[in-house]
Amino acid sequence: GLRVLIREMKPSEIEDLYFELDGRDFVILFRLLEKDLALEIFESFSVEHQVEIIKLMEEADTIDLLEPLDPDDCARIFEELPAKITKRLLNGLSPERRKYVNLLLGYPEGSAGRYMTPRYVSAHKYQNAGEVLTGLHASPLRADEMPMIFIIDRERKYSGYVMLGDLIKTEPLTPLESIVKGEDIFIYTTDPKNRAVEIISEYDIPSLAVLDAEKRLVGAVTFDDVMDVAEEEATDDFHKMGTVGLMRTGLKDANVRLLYAKRVPWLLTLVFINIFSGAAIASFEDTIQAVVALVIFLPLLIDSGGNAGSQSATLVVRSLATGDVKNKDWFYLIGREMLVAATIGITMGAAAAGLGIYRGGLELGVVVAVTMIIVIFAGCLIGTTLPFLLTALKMDPATASAPLITSIADIVGVVIYFRIATWYYGIA
Amino acid sequence: GLRVLIREMKPSEIEDLYFELDGRDFVILFRLLEKDLALEIFESFSVEHQVEIIKLMEEADTIDLLEPLDPDDCARIFEELPAKITKRLLNGLSPERRKYVNLLLGYPEGSAGRYMTPRYVSAHKYQNAGEVLTGLHASPLRADEMPMIFIIDRERKYSGYVMLGDLIKTEPLTPLESIVKGEDIFIYTTDPKNRAVEIISEYDIPSLAVLDAEKRLVGAVTFDDVMDVAEEEATDDFHKMGTVGLMRTGLKDANVRLLYAKRVPWLLTLVFINIFSGAAIASFEDTIQAVVALVIFLPLLIDSGGNAGSQSATLVVRSLATGDVKNKDWFYLIGREMLVAATIGITMGAAAAGLGIYRGGLELGVVVAVTMIIVIFAGCLIGTTLPFLLTALKMDPATASAPLITSIADIVGVVIYFRIATWYYGIA
Ligand SMILES: [Mg+2]
Ligand SMILES: [Mg+2]
Ligand SMILES: [Mg+2]
Ligand SMILES: [Mg+2]
Ligand SMILES: [Mg+2]
Ligand SMILES: [Mg+2]
Ligand SMILES: [Mg+2]
Ligand SMILES: [Mg+2]
Ligand SMILES: [Mg+2]
Ligand SMILES: [Mg+2]
Ligand SMILES: [Mg+2]
Ligand SMILES: [Mg+2]
Ligand SMILES: [Mg+2]
Repeated sequence: GLRVLIREMKPSEIEDLYFELDGRDFVILFRLLEKDLALEIFESFSVEHQVEIIKLMEEADTIDLLEPLDPDDCARIFEELPAKITKRLLNGLSPERRKYVNLLLGYPEGSAGRYMTPRYVSAHKYQNAGEVLTGLHASPLRADEMPMIFIIDRERKYSGYVMLGDLIKTEPLTPLESIVKGEDIFIYTTDPKNRAVEIISEYDIPSLAVLDAEKRLVGAVTFDDVMDVAEEEATDDFHKMGTVGLMRTGLKDANVRLLYAKRVPWLLTLVFINIFSGAAIASFEDTIQAVVALVIFLPLLIDSGGNAGSQSATLVVRSLATGDVKNKDWFYLIGREMLVAATIGITMGAAAAGLGIYRGGLELGVVVAVTMIIVIFAGCLIGTTLPFLLTALKMDPATASAPLITSIADIVGVVIYFRIATWYYGIA
Repeated sequence: GLRVLIREMKPSEIEDLYFELDGRDFVILFRLLEKDLALEIFESFSVEHQVEIIKLMEEADTIDLLEPLDPDDCARIFEELPAKITKRLLNGLSPERRKYVNLLLGYPEGSAGRYMTPRYVSAHKYQNAGEVLTGLHASPLRADEMPMIFIIDRERKYSGYVMLGDLIKTEPLTPLESIVKGEDIFIYTTDPKNRAVEIISEYDIPSLAVLDAEKRLVGAVTFDDVMDVAEEEATDDFHKMGTVGLMRTGLKDANVRLLYAKRVPWLLTLVFINIFSGAAIASFEDTIQAVVALVIFLPLLIDSGGNAGSQSATLVVRSLATGDVKNKDWFYLIGREMLVAATIGITMGAAAAGLGIYRGGLELGVVVAVTMIIVIFAGCLIGTTLPFLLTALKMDPATASAPLITSIADIVGVVIYFRIATWYYGIA
């Protein structure tokens, strides 16, 4: 019955069933698959879904699935599993696999070491192309694990790479030494994972040598995993800019409880910051009482400072993430930002003046315009500086989210606006 | 003198000179390099910098640089050059190169066709592994251009791929037909470029076949270019969420004029939207006059709605971009969002009630708390719906930026707040 039905489905159709069925039903169905097919489908899921499936399966079946997985993918799943399950499952793995997973998990979170695979090709520099090709012909590695041959010396020290295609293009007797390149292209296990993204992206190589502190070759990081890292990092920064906490679960799979937990802390923090805007307003109650029309422009003025500041922060945070801007560039950027803020401020001030004059005459127009210019200036300075400041404090620059900048700019805006108004209208 | 000095520098050191010297000086120095080295360094720059260098060079030198470049990279530069220069430079290229660049530029912007290279390996399915390897040995292609062999029939119709490593692992007499796979793994020239990112990322392949409408193989898109597309797309969305216009220049290279042009339009649009908040406040002047303390909570209440809405929009926009969420998921998401909004609203309402009672007694506490709950609800609905609505209107969902959501939420917040207050305090 069911078994025959499944046999007629394409792998991608079975994959889709995961999203259509209840998790438990999918796992029951999943058990009926041939081992190879089950593995293929399991591999195509994201880590979050893999973890969910593992949690729903019988332990024995789980081991059948984890053991043949790429060792780095296997480690990635263990990373996300609760410590209790990790321990039990690790014991079910083969000693060799268990040792490797433990090795990877021993590197700090976010380090390149955590992403390396032991399945790569290495050769000695005194070997020739033909020898290596003969070795590869009999190798247990898969085709996608041999795009590059990493060259090492007698102490396993890294001295460059040769691409598989180069072995084929050259004569069999050519010594590797004469075609090796990329001696400087490698990463250390302890380097941040982002560094692997940068290097693979700069040199357009499908695989990157990972070395220990003694420059010995210990693994390889591949382009596909680096693509996942880049996507994950972009998502993290995106979420941080929108004051959503770190979320490893996809939006569709997140439940109400998780979303609440990821969103409420920042919202409450912003409430706290807003107490200061409120207190500032309270101290100007007399001014408001005297010229109620001032309130009409309050949202416009405080928002504009925050909006301009969010723009600055957005540009800086993304540039810091892609490596386009470094910490040392702050001085140059802040100088230029003042010019940008001046031009934007004057334009916005003119717009505000028009609105102010229309609503409340020349006096209000002047107050609103001057406030706008100062508020834009303040917003831009805060937005440009905060991400650098956070970096200096060893925090993520993306914490300088739009709502945070907006709320800080609000305080500045309220004080500047009512102070100017109080002075200009001559209110005691 | 200078020539000797440069000869002793590493390529990466010469690259760095670009960022230290004036553009014109760099170009003078660049001309002194050996052709191969110049090409290597030129290739390592981003498209924006390549375009800048091209603009500063003599036309004849430019051709020397563009002609040997990868054809797809060459097309990418032409894309960004002013039409006038493009036309003149195209005429300087070899007829073959000119034809190819024109072909790529003929595909719509943002389509996969624009990113394909003609430098890939194809073989017929009745060939055997040894024949293909012999062909590759004598091929003019570079090693990085042959990670995969695309299999075609007599009409050039695509029928799958074989990885280079598979050719080596198998016996020379094995027919390709018996080891071919990935018949369904390809992309059409007219597909959006994002689709290439999704496929390469799902199947972890270094290269992807590009087919025309008749399923004939016409090119290949490689992982390195797809990584660049993904990074660019993430940057675009990031900028849009922060209301910064599309910016192809890096932040460090942007000048004041460009930054002004990219930032002011949205800021002015937001001023326009803020006119409505202002008008709403104006219509409640009597209420404000009666209870000035209400103004104290205005920034808090309107910001909170905007902040919660920004969070919703952030989650939805990023999920739509990564493909985690599709248009059809709106209905499910909005249902769940109401539950999330309810839990967040109650928490925030409680916090607001505390502040309100502290500042203005029980009455103000009730008004502030009720407003908070409604405003959070409204913010979450706007933030979740707007990105889908924009998609339906064929606009980019990332246009639903934090500042836009905030400004819309402001209007809703002002009206709800003062209406409840007016009613609760019994002000006519
Ligand atoms: Mg994945
Ligand atoms: Mg894999
Ligand atoms: Mg891997
Ligand atoms: Mg690249
Ligand atoms: Mg993978
Ligand atoms: Mg980050
Ligand atoms: Mg605000
Ligand atoms: Mg290239
Ligand atoms: Mg992948
Ligand atoms: Mg390319
Ligand atoms: Mg490239
Ligand atoms: Mg987009
Ligand atoms: Mg606001």
